[in-house]
Amino acid sequence: MDRLLMVVGATLIALFGTAAARAEDGYDLWLRYDAPQYRQAWASIGSPGAVSADEDHPTIRAAADELTRALGHDPAATPASSAATILIGTARSPQIARLGLPLAGLGPEGYLVRAVTAEGRRTIVVAAREPVGVLYGAFALIRQAGQGGSLGGLDLSDQPRVRLRVLDHWDNLDRHVERGYAGQSIWDWWRLPAIGDRRYTDYARANASIGVNGTVLNNVNAKADSLTAPYLAKAAAVADVLRPWGIRVYLSARFSAPIELGGLKTADPLDPQVRAWWKVKADEIYRVIPDFGGFLVKANSEGQPGPRDYKRSHADGANALAAALAPHGGVVMWRAFVYADTDPDDRAKQAFTEFKPLDGTFADNVLVQVKNGPIDFQPREPFHPLFGAMPKTPLMIEFQITKEYLGFASHLAYLGPLFAETLAADTRGKGAGSTVAKVVDGSLDGHRLSGIAGVANIGSDRDWSGSIFDQANWYAFGRLAWNPTADPQALATEWTRLTWSSDPTVVTPVVAMMMRSRQAVVDYMTPLGLAHLMATGHHYGPGPWVSDLARPEWNPSYYHRADRNGIGFDRTRTGSNAVAQYAPPLARRFANPAATGEDLLLWFHHLPWDHRLAGGDTLWDTLVRRYDRGVAGAASLRSDWAALRGRVDEERWQRTAERLAVQEAEARWWRDASVAYFQSVSGRPLPPGSAKPAHDLDWYKAQLFPYAPGQGQ
Amino acid sequence: MDRLLMVVGATLIALFGTAAARAEDGYDLWLRYDAPQYRQAWASIGSPGAVSADEDHPTIRAAADELTRALGHDPAATPASSAATILIGTARSPQIARLGLPLAGLGPEGYLVRAVTAEGRRTIVVAAREPVGVLYGAFALIRQAGQGGSLGGLDLSDQPRVRLRVLDHWDNLDRHVERGYAGQSIWDWWRLPAIGDRRYTDYARANASIGVNGTVLNNVNAKADSLTAPYLAKAAAVADVLRPWGIRVYLSARFSAPIELGGLKTADPLDPQVRAWWKVKADEIYRVIPDFGGFLVKANSEGQPGPRDYKRSHADGANALAAALAPHGGVVMWRAFVYADTDPDDRAKQAFTEFKPLDGTFADNVLVQVKNGPIDFQPREPFHPLFGAMPKTPLMIEFQITKEYLGFASHLAYLGPLFAETLAADTRGKGAGSTVAKVVDGSLDGHRLSGIAGVANIGSDRDWSGSIFDQANWYAFGRLAWNPTADPQALATEWTRLTWSSDPTVVTPVVAMMMRSRQAVVDYMTPLGLAHLMATGHHYGPGPWVSDLARPEWNPSYYHRADRNGIGFDRTRTGSNAVAQYAPPLARRFANPAATGEDLLLWFHHLPWDHRLAGGDTLWDTLVRRYDRGVAGAASLRSDWAALRGRVDEERWQRTAERLAVQEAEARWWRDASVAYFQSVSGRPLPPGSAKPAHDLDWYKAQLFPYAPGQGQ
Repeated sequence: MDRLLMVVGATLIALFGTAAARAEDGYDLWLRYDAPQYRQAWASIGSPGAVSADEDHPTIRAAADELTRALGHDPAATPASSAATILIGTARSPQIARLGLPLAGLGPEGYLVRAVTAEGRRTIVVAAREPVGVLYGAFALIRQAGQGGSLGGLDLSDQPRVRLRVLDHWDNLDRHVERGYAGQSIWDWWRLPAIGDRRYTDYARANASIGVNGTVLNNVNAKADSLTAPYLAKAAAVADVLRPWGIRVYLSARFSAPIELGGLKTADPLDPQVRAWWKVKADEIYRVIPDFGGFLVKANSEGQPGPRDYKRSHADGANALAAALAPHGGVVMWRAFVYADTDPDDRAKQAFTEFKPLDGTFADNVLVQVKNGPIDFQPREPFHPLFGAMPKTPLMIEFQITKEYLGFASHLAYLGPLFAETLAADTRGKGAGSTVAKVVDGSLDGHRLSGIAGVANIGSDRDWSGSIFDQANWYAFGRLAWNPTADPQALATEWTRLTWSSDPTVVTPVVAMMMRSRQAVVDYMTPLGLAHLMATGHHYGPGPWVSDLARPEWNPSYYHRADRNGIGFDRTRTGSNAVAQYAPPLARRFANPAATGEDLLLWFHHLPWDHRLAGGDTLWDTLVRRYDRGVAGAASLRSDWAALRGRVDEERWQRTAERLAVQEAEARWWRDASVAYFQSVSGRPLPPGSAKPAHDLDWYKAQLFPYAPGQGQ
Repeated sequence: MDRLLMVVGATLIALFGTAAARAEDGYDLWLRYDAPQYRQAWASIGSPGAVSADEDHPTIRAAADELTRALGHDPAATPASSAATILIGTARSPQIARLGLPLAGLGPEGYLVRAVTAEGRRTIVVAAREPVGVLYGAFALIRQAGQGGSLGGLDLSDQPRVRLRVLDHWDNLDRHVERGYAGQSIWDWWRLPAIGDRRYTDYARANASIGVNGTVLNNVNAKADSLTAPYLAKAAAVADVLRPWGIRVYLSARFSAPIELGGLKTADPLDPQVRAWWKVKADEIYRVIPDFGGFLVKANSEGQPGPRDYKRSHADGANALAAALAPHGGVVMWRAFVYADTDPDDRAKQAFTEFKPLDGTFADNVLVQVKNGPIDFQPREPFHPLFGAMPKTPLMIEFQITKEYLGFASHLAYLGPLFAETLAADTRGKGAGSTVAKVVDGSLDGHRLSGIAGVANIGSDRDWSGSIFDQANWYAFGRLAWNPTADPQALATEWTRLTWSSDPTVVTPVVAMMMRSRQAVVDYMTPLGLAHLMATGHHYGPGPWVSDLARPEWNPSYYHRADRNGIGFDRTRTGSNAVAQYAPPLARRFANPAATGEDLLLWFHHLPWDHRLAGGDTLWDTLVRRYDRGVAGAASLRSDWAALRGRVDEERWQRTAERLAVQEAEARWWRDASVAYFQSVSGRPLPPGSAKPAHDLDWYKAQLFPYAPGQGQ
């Protein structure tokens, strides 16, 4: 007995030694199978000793290995014997077939997870029509286990509402990530294809766990090189790793590649040689990546080449590439993010003006990819007016997970509410209830093809996203892409349990922090419907005074239009009339300041500083108080987190505390710089109790950040 | 009893689960305290339960924590009781003082590690004059434990022979690492100083473990910004982390900073305003980094500003900065790496020509930093002729740990033999035995100040260096900086035991692979004393045909001088007479092809293709056979590694196998391209049995690598 106790002691020391050396660093994301709730959950169903699968399919094997790992077993070791088991498979598995489960109603990616008794054993069955459904079911089971509580009587069934759930990597071939704040690209193009990386597999696991089924590997500001044979071999090596996890690879295609790679004199999409070049290129791609997803294209946008260079329409361009991909089942995701300095019209209107007339002219395998709002991923925008306005075209919504305009990776801004706000918006396109979600999932207009894209916030940083809380935005994106009507608070709760702790004394305050974080950022950066007030180039920090950039619509002054008398962008009939791009009930609402609501007030209206808001305060006083509220919000995030010390592991707590301190300081900086500037314009005194900015305006103007990460190259 | 067994079982499952999820990824470098030999070693001295230290000093605490970790304990946990203990401290510790150890003879960084009985307990004592010596002693004890075998009767004592043992990071402020092949800079300048990183501490631990005591944080191609207050605050935050580990921070200084930051019209080192600016700047630096090490300067070299811009000497420039640092105890490390396209003389001669006349004119706190060879970190060069030729000046040798010219991070080339070959070279400066090592450690000329610098191969890659084997070059550099006469094979053996396994069936073949790897690279890249044959800009892959670059000495054709009749650079009296820069006995030897030896033959001589070598073969046939031998060497590295599968952990085995496959393929590429080119020049047939290149010469010339990592910016 004494001898045994010594062994126990030694084992425990080894365990703690390991634990100490391997403190949590965020690498495991929300797949932290060492967390205590898993063991409790597995115990509640008899601590299954193994995962049983009798199909020889890479995706089934991936699901089995993942479940084995989640059970705390080593997939390479001999399974422990146990009275309970987990059985996984499709109807092609005799074991599954025997159970007579109702699989017919599940879509190709749906799953069913149920506690049953099979051959006298307690069994959790994970079943689906296709292997990828089994994989999603396995992750659903693991996710449920990670929520804490018992798994007894389990009965889950779900399927995704959107077909293409895609991450867009704005990753360059030299590993610089445009708008990336988490290190380099995880795609190590230099070493690929001969040299792999464990990260590729863990990336696939993380994405499969939230239902992401596609990834665009390279930046929309694309180099033609990514379509050369050596780079296709590299992409193929990545595709080989991702395939078992149900994830297809896509590439951003440079529209002028037929010139740069093919030696042609034109990239005119109606030129037969150009069309032939794309066809040959597509055939070449599918030889090395048989399940290649297709192309993402940024054309005639911010300097990129496109069909307009040849007086062809965006539909002509998209359809040329689509024709090359169609025989192989690939799609084109064609971005609607266009605006031109040669067009004097309101930037917010230009994509609508250009794309709406093209509705009905796109090939069957084209999706038009539309940003959530009409400008560019601001802390808050109204939904893009194209949603609801192109019923004959599948519209793919594009969110930005990386926080180009919301404080990079050092500010906590949980984007679930931002995503959900847009998806829940009612376009009125086909009467009340025509939500963006229904446009996007194809149900409103009966589209078979549907998609949601998110600009990834993933990089080589050990924690993938630059902070632990930024992992939540990746998570929420994937879960909302699966179900665009999911509740962002429920997702925050789910993520918090998986990532931080299932202890309610942690979950409750953390979820509360997350849920108010985005509004805090809106308040200290761009309150009351203001937008695009950041400094030049790197988009880091405030620059509302900037008005000297070459293109008018690059200047913050273009957006806020503040002067001695008032502030805001008049988008009513007396201004740009952008409101008319929305369905009539919305156009009427947005035309009326009182009906617009404070959140979007200055987006649609230019108002005098002494305009009275609903609460009775003047616009000027309210603006300043919103900035103050934002700073107070950032400060409370920090203090609420401080109270959680000791309830989560010290390493991740500390990392997060450091970032929240930065956020508070930068919130003050944003507020002070913005207030100093707007006061210089309005000439009005600060409302009572509102503090003078820490420095004068010139000090804020003098701040330069030549080495900020993520800039375009 | 049954109940207890169940607990044990659960614990073991948790442990194995952790082990499976946490396969070795190289992050722990040579500090893998989970390796089995440690437990055996600690058992041999009674399995010490704790580390005892009674001095309150950050460095003593660091040493105690590290030992605790190595013992397999959690430093934060209550120490286990045990019959044995480890006692650490300086003579200021009463416990240590009581032992009456012979500490007086140790230098300020020396240590003594001894097995004793103290107060009736088995005790390993780690004692030193200063805390940093205790730290080095702790690591010496750990290193010894990691070698396998018993620690009984332990009696170690050592001290470094060189004072400044420094890593030079060629890291830019945007995190790009010039000549870096392991990801981004580990210095996350953007997030510093508010946001830290566990890596900073682990970097310090690794360096302290091999005796490195200084680090230059930024690229020698320096931006003035690194000397601004915000960036000094960032450097200070790093310095705070490194300080307990005995490591001082240095910065590369841009010579023109007084103009760029100070607004002066000149950076003339004799201008009083310029000198005052540097003094004020130095005072500012020492306020935030009290133990700041000093400046590294690249001046009038490859476009960098310097004193020659004002017709002042390098000594004038170095002394101006040295005067500003002297009151604080800082040093200037002034690089001798100068050459000019305006100077028609042999590039290999120019540094000597410029610096030798300055001997004796440098301030006391200046070291002149000289690359190991006269060109630029080639796979093999003769030692730099300045060694032995500037007796009145402390010469700091500069090695390149990152493998700019030896296959980046994907080729195995253990650099211990390269470093040792230079250090062991006899300059004959003061007669026979005047080795470079004695010049560098100061003993030959009685210098108090001495230093060795290595251009770091460290980046954000999880394994730090881009491959496991490249970690050995960091390790060997540190150990050779501590003792420049250390045997590279012994260091390879030591490193292999710590890094891979202490099992002799692993150690023997791995050390053999390492020891022949560098010669293999020489053979397939630049055999027989050839040099600088790589492609342009990125220095990746062969480019012996390149002859069109603006500066003559940037062209490989400048170096090999191959034509129809022969090959090689005549550096004898009939050529550039670079041999005359060496001491007379060496000058005579290098002037004679038969005495020069094959290794440096074409470095010093231009010879006809049909020149007969000692073995009887012609130069042409021998050249081709050397290329063949290089390819065979790379192939054997790969096959020898294949035989080790299963004897080391699978993850690191696989990572390494992938890289060795790349090396073999690239060795063939180097060989084929070089042979194709030289054959096009010589017009001679390949020797019997030597294979035709896989492609024609034009194919090799057409290879382009626009996205190669590590290029200058």
